[in-house]
This record gives sequence, structure tokens and C-alpha cells, in this order.
Amino acid sequence: MGIKAVIFDAYGTLFDVYSVARLAETLFPGQGAKLAELWRDKQIEYSRLRTLSGQYRPFSQVTQDSLVFSLRKLKLDDSSPIVQRLVDQYGRLTVFPENAGALAELCELGLPLAILSNGDLPMLEPLLAQSGLGPYFTALLSADQVRRFKTAPEVYQLGPDTLGHAAAQMLFVSSNAWDACGARWFGYQSFWINRAGQPPEELGIAPDATGSSMRDVVAHVRSHAAASPQPPSH
Amino acid sequence: MGIKAVIFDAYGTLFDVYSVARLAETLFPGQGAKLAELWRDKQIEYSRLRTLSGQYRPFSQVTQDSLVFSLRKLKLDDSSPIVQRLVDQYGRLTVFPENAGALAELCELGLPLAILSNGDLPMLEPLLAQSGLGPYFTALLSADQVRRFKTAPEVYQLGPDTLGHAAAQMLFVSSNAWDACGARWFGYQSFWINRAGQPPEELGIAPDATGSSMRDVVAHVRSHAAASPQPPSH
Repeated sequence: MGIKAVIFDAYGTLFDVYSVARLAETLFPGQGAKLAELWRDKQIEYSRLRTLSGQYRPFSQVTQDSLVFSLRKLKLDDSSPIVQRLVDQYGRLTVFPENAGALAELCELGLPLAILSNGDLPMLEPLLAQSGLGPYFTALLSADQVRRFKTAPEVYQLGPDTLGHAAAQMLFVSSNAWDACGARWFGYQSFWINRAGQPPEELGIAPDATGSSMRDVVAHVRSHAAASPQPPSH
Repeated sequence: MGIKAVIFDAYGTLFDVYSVARLAETLFPGQGAKLAELWRDKQIEYSRLRTLSGQYRPFSQVTQDSLVFSLRKLKLDDSSPIVQRLVDQYGRLTVFPENAGALAELCELGLPLAILSNGDLPMLEPLLAQSGLGPYFTALLSADQVRRFKTAPEVYQLGPDTLGHAAAQMLFVSSNAWDACGARWFGYQSFWINRAGQPPEELGIAPDATGSSMRDVVAHVRSHAAASPQPPSH
């Protein structure tokens, strides 16, 4: 079915969550990568546990809680100034280098682009503003609106509800394999940007397409976009 | 409130899931511990994703799927005989050495003991049989009965439904910190056996008590058990 809109995950897909590793490495030489990885894993774990148990807290809180756990697990300084500096870095995550150009090309195809993220707006809006990516998107959808995190169906439902197309007519793009699978389970077409060369998840479902960067998303959308109305011929 | 029954998690609490590392190490020298750890993490991750997305499959399937992913991620032989040997090992997990004695003592206190596990009965029953722990338990409750995994409330609800006591009158025991927290969220009293000396989870809730082995559970139950009817005095 032709693609009528494209929805992007934010963390890991538009923004490099491991870019916090640089600050972490400055603060804790030799431990930066390990802290960044553990922090990310716990952040996702806590988002799922809270959703499963009906104990929602905004992603900003989950992000801070998971950092505190990670610092303690690695026996690193978990004092407030350290926590604050690292959490603040989440508002300055690096954009993957090809993303701005790729988003510009997608916009030229005339398809609406949206973001659907676990993040709450107080986290997402400043990040989007400082990144310069804001103007490419027509909607910024947050799990916070339904007080659950991915892969709960209520979160993915924000796409059809807001953009007015069935999930099956939209492409969901994520660098998180589990998110690309969750979106497929829900009913989207999905694209997995496998930036790290991971094996596919063994979840009994696969994304419709896989690539290694946002460039591959552009190529996929070009060949699968719903036919636009043609300008009148002269 | 006095404890009227004790419910135990199985994997990690009664049985040592990392005991598969020995076979894994024989098959893949130098990689056994890493494989066992990744396998366990993915097993739990898949159980949560499938529950969040309403895509239940029995834990035996999830266990095999997560093993296949882990073998591929570590670039190890993922052929069927290897997968089968490792999965079969899940039916022969080691029992933590203090458990049989501790369970015997708890039985002497006259409290009903039960198991509440993510595992399905085809996984749990042979494991329980070969371990010799079976006779200590009055009920074997499986997430498979409600086709969801922990920490979904429907799973924890099996305890009150089967044992006939309110969750708040029962002690839930787990070596998985997230499970002890999930049980508390649901309404149980909970005990975390922190075998690995981990920091507590930062989930805004804490188990009622923590110890380092099943011996500490016995001590806790002794001092918190609901008063038994006294034998008539002579």
C-alpha cells in the first residue's frame, strides 16, 4: 500500500542517545561508553516496567531514575550536580549527520512527517529546537499524551488519530529494532535503520524494510510513496 | 500485616538461570557467561515486549527465540542441535544450595508455599520434578494461565485468586529486583533476594525487605508470620 505519511521515532533514530557518552567519558574516564549503554538499557527497561504495571511517570523522570541506578551500579559519583549535568545533555543530543538532508528530501516528496516518541514535550521541544529539525515535522506526538510507553498500542494509535491515515498507509521509522517490530505489530509499515549492524529481533515479525541510515529511508519512501496528484498537463 | 502465605518466583529465585553458563562455556569456550547473561536479558525483554503489544507466546518459545538472537548477536553457532542442547538445559537448572533446607523450614511454619512464574507448565513441571522441590509447594501458578508476563497485574492476581488471601497478606519472594518491585506495586508484601549485591532499582518503590539468600527469607517470615492457632494448653 502506498505510503501517505512517515512517522519517526526520536531517541536513537533522529538523535544519537549515545552522544552522552562523550560527556560521561569526560566525567568518568574509561567508563563513558559503559555508562551510556547501561543508562539507555535501564531507561527503556523502566519505561516498559512502568507501563506493564500501570505506574506511568514521564520519560524525563524515567531518564533521571535510570541514570541514578546506572551510576550506582557502576559505583560512580551519583551526586546531584553530576546527575544534572548528564540529564541536561539529553537536551543536546547529537543529530545523526545525514538526517537533516534526508528529512529535507522527504519533505520535497510532499508527505507529512511526524515524530512519535516516548519522550515528554518538556524533553522533546528544546531538543528539537536546538537541533534545527523542527520545521520538517507537522506533528510532535508524545507517549505522555496517553501515559504509557512503547510498545503499548495506545502510543502507536496517536499516529492514525493525529495524521488521519490508517496505520497501514504510514511508514514508521525507528533505529530501535523492537520499536520497528512493535509498530508492525500495531499495523504500520515499518523501516528499521540498523545503524549498529545488529541481528534482527526474534519476535516472529519483521520490519517491512531495513537499511543502515536515513538515506535508505529516503530511497524506500521514493519507491513506495502513494502517487501524488499530478499537476495538470499543458 | 501478618504473612499468611509465601509465593516464590522460579527463575533466578529457586533456580539459577546462569547455571546454563557451564554448558555454554563448554560449547563456546570464553563466551559462556556472556551468552548466559545476554540470553537472560533478551528472554525478559521479549516477555515484556510481547505483553505490552498483546502478542503472547509461551515462555518456552520466548526462551528459544531469545537464545537464537543471542547466539547470532555473539556470532556463535545457532544450528538446531546447539539451540536444542541449550534449551534443554533450562529443564535442568541448578537449585541454589540453601533453598531445599529453607523451604523445609518454611513448611514447618505451617504456611502454604506457592510458585508464580513466567514459565509455562511444560517448562516448569519437569524442572520442579527433577529438582526435588515439588513437595514443598501447594500451587504452581503460571503466567501462561493469563497469557501475559510479569509485571502485568493479571499475572500477580493469580496469587490471591488461587490461595484465597489478599495480596497484602502474602509475601512475594524474588531474586529479580524488578519482580519484587512489580509485586509491591500490585499489592503484595515483597522480599528481594539480592544474590548479586546489586543496587536497588530506582522505580519509586522498594521491597519490604531485602536479603542475600533464602536463609534471610526464613528469618523474615519467622518474625512476620501471622499468628498460628495455638495448640490447646494442658
